[in-house]
Amino acid sequence: MFTLFHHPFCPHSRFVRLVLGELGVELNLVEERTWERREAFLALNPAGATPVLIAEGQPAIPGAGIIAEYLDETLGAEAADRRLLPQAMAERIEVRRLMAWFNEKFFEEASNPLVTERIYKRFMSEQEGGGPPSADVMRAAKVNVRYHLAYIGWLARTRNYLAGDRITFADLAAAAHLSAIDYLGDVPWSEDDAAKAWYARVKSRPSFRPLLSEWLAGVPASRTYVDLDF
Amino acid sequence: MFTLFHHPFCPHSRFVRLVLGELGVELNLVEERTWERREAFLALNPAGATPVLIAEGQPAIPGAGIIAEYLDETLGAEAADRRLLPQAMAERIEVRRLMAWFNEKFFEEASNPLVTERIYKRFMSEQEGGGPPSADVMRAAKVNVRYHLAYIGWLARTRNYLAGDRITFADLAAAAHLSAIDYLGDVPWSEDDAAKAWYARVKSRPSFRPLLSEWLAGVPASRTYVDLDF
Repeated sequence: MFTLFHHPFCPHSRFVRLVLGELGVELNLVEERTWERREAFLALNPAGATPVLIAEGQPAIPGAGIIAEYLDETLGAEAADRRLLPQAMAERIEVRRLMAWFNEKFFEEASNPLVTERIYKRFMSEQEGGGPPSADVMRAAKVNVRYHLAYIGWLARTRNYLAGDRITFADLAAAAHLSAIDYLGDVPWSEDDAAKAWYARVKSRPSFRPLLSEWLAGVPASRTYVDLDF
Repeated sequence: MFTLFHHPFCPHSRFVRLVLGELGVELNLVEERTWERREAFLALNPAGATPVLIAEGQPAIPGAGIIAEYLDETLGAEAADRRLLPQAMAERIEVRRLMAWFNEKFFEEASNPLVTERIYKRFMSEQEGGGPPSADVMRAAKVNVRYHLAYIGWLARTRNYLAGDRITFADLAAAAHLSAIDYLGDVPWSEDDAAKAWYARVKSRPSFRPLLSEWLAGVPASRTYVDLDF
């Protein structure tokens, strides 16, 4: 049994939940509002960010990429053909490249600014950086979503899944970040049919169900969010 | 034989050079100015960032963290007690946590803004974002250097090396980022004796020599940069 310190809209937390769902692992969730800088949480992860995974007998495991490596090293072998980080070196490089692309680049350029402006800032006090969303930040982030969506579409036209024949960490990372901003209606799906078809397939997986069923009071989900046939 | 697309002041490139030096691997260096967005380089790494490692028979390997995992998976076992990512799980988590701390958090908050403002912007055209350094950005980054230096000092007082008894990826990541800004004189060493003593030990290693001997025309290195007994 694992415990995950997460936030429902933190894209990296969503990624870890999808990974654990795919691996069929049970999970306790603890919601952490990182901007409150709770001392006990900072002791677990001095970087002060979600997600943090607690696994029995190990130090706290912080961050999407480190958690993914840990889960592959401990559970990957028994996952056999459901393994999310393939064994062949060229595939490992490509899966890690795309996992980093979404967990770092997409996060910085698109999902983090949109989630921060539209969700986190509602809950933050003025001292914590709360307040109305910045239209400039959101506009820039939405432009970035479009070029990322085109890149996903290009990959999805070239391959069965983003990094190759089978579903991997790369697909779950991309889908996790997209799902957070799709809730907000910030993904222009009509611009890329291949990206949309790929996302519909990933979104239909049982690992996705818990994410789709959590709604935030006062912030209705977009029309496309839950619809598997959007 | 490997080829590394790098920039002499890119802290992530410095990290990879230190790692390869520790592993005793020979290297061809190709200097890449990422802001020129050279097409052949973007084909190697669509993210457009250094470092990119070229290893025979593999796809291009982009980014400090992915390169570190690759080198550990291919050369770690034969490195034996010089292995930079230990085998025990708790140590792997701690090494990866600190490697990410420096390659992501320190980079974003300190080394990247300082290197961008003081070095890269000299070489960039106006369209590429060049121009005089921003005093505000540098001031904020220098404040961040101080709290990171205190954290390094705290780790160095608690342990022999940053992540434990032996030198690991964590030390090389921290030292790589520090070295780039130490060239510029932006590390207040007098504020933390333990951090300074740890850095003096890492800087004395043969893997560090190539970095210390490269100077940039028109930008003299700080008084402390080459001095092993600063």
